[in-house]
Amino acid sequence: MPFATTCRVEAVLVATDPDTFVTRRVEAVEVDLGGIPGDRHHGLTRPAGSREPMYPRGTPIRNRRQLSAVSVEECQAIADGLGLDAVLPEWLGANLLLSGLPELTRLPAGARLLFPSGAGLVCEGENRPCRHPGEVLARLHPLHPERAALPVRFVQVARGRRGIVLSVERPGRIARGDAVRIWLPRR
Amino acid sequence: MPFATTCRVEAVLVATDPDTFVTRRVEAVEVDLGGIPGDRHHGLTRPAGSREPMYPRGTPIRNRRQLSAVSVEECQAIADGLGLDAVLPEWLGANLLLSGLPELTRLPAGARLLFPSGAGLVCEGENRPCRHPGEVLARLHPLHPERAALPVRFVQVARGRRGIVLSVERPGRIARGDAVRIWLPRR
Repeated sequence: MPFATTCRVEAVLVATDPDTFVTRRVEAVEVDLGGIPGDRHHGLTRPAGSREPMYPRGTPIRNRRQLSAVSVEECQAIADGLGLDAVLPEWLGANLLLSGLPELTRLPAGARLLFPSGAGLVCEGENRPCRHPGEVLARLHPLHPERAALPVRFVQVARGRRGIVLSVERPGRIARGDAVRIWLPRR
Repeated sequence: MPFATTCRVEAVLVATDPDTFVTRRVEAVEVDLGGIPGDRHHGLTRPAGSREPMYPRGTPIRNRRQLSAVSVEECQAIADGLGLDAVLPEWLGANLLLSGLPELTRLPAGARLLFPSGAGLVCEGENRPCRHPGEVLARLHPLHPERAALPVRFVQVARGRRGIVLSVERPGRIARGDAVRIWLPRR
């Protein structure tokens, strides 16, 4: 089997506050075929939005953006690019913080993340950055010398580094500390 | 929007006979989030099989192989390679026969096929050939000089040409004669 590598789950996070996409850390989640129950991105379907201009806005489409993952390495590169000490996965609304995959964002669509419980996620492609996380960064760093520019700068700096979106292929538990096998599609 | 090209639906086919994967032509189908209702590959989930060695056989996993599509051009290339006049989509168990996309099998995972009704399918990757269609070819061509070798030869000749598997992103009608827009993922 083409297992390219393994990586590690440094944090598991959920967005359960209806007022914000910012996530908070938990020890583990039990994913089903809609994602993380109770998370704002959970569902078998979701309304088409600005990322799906090929469908009328609001049309129910299959939810391929159930979870999002970022890497420790890419978060640090974004922080360096913005002149910040750190960019936390919470501020990006990420559900998984992974280490050991420095170029997580380049993982091809169709790659699988396989967890010790037997749970499996499928990479649905790059999570293209929007301005909202930069707005969170600006609120949290009132003394930043380029504070007003952070939303735009975030989109520039985070391109190609903002991680991936995933959907659930096989339900199961995902926990902090898990070793994750990465299975690459054959081409 | 990155519409690379368009292609055309030359045939719509379904597998409704429980005894065979061979498909038959219909004028149109109405797909839902499980695929083509009544088709043998329909379902939100399916049991893991030999194509998913990372999961225990029989485990329910999300069904990413709801429909399969082949191209007129690649079917002819397979026929030429096997010394046959034609290889019909029926014999491959295909649900869609497309023209105008000579390298359909190379379409990347995440590419979308968008139909006039508004229906949308997502490419889930190459459909890697197995021996079963070659066994059908051998039954149908009793006088072929290399009849006994057709199952093995099919796997060799059809590699990279056997089309793709797809899942439904947005339900709707797919009909013979449809012009299909192909939307490629950004990378």
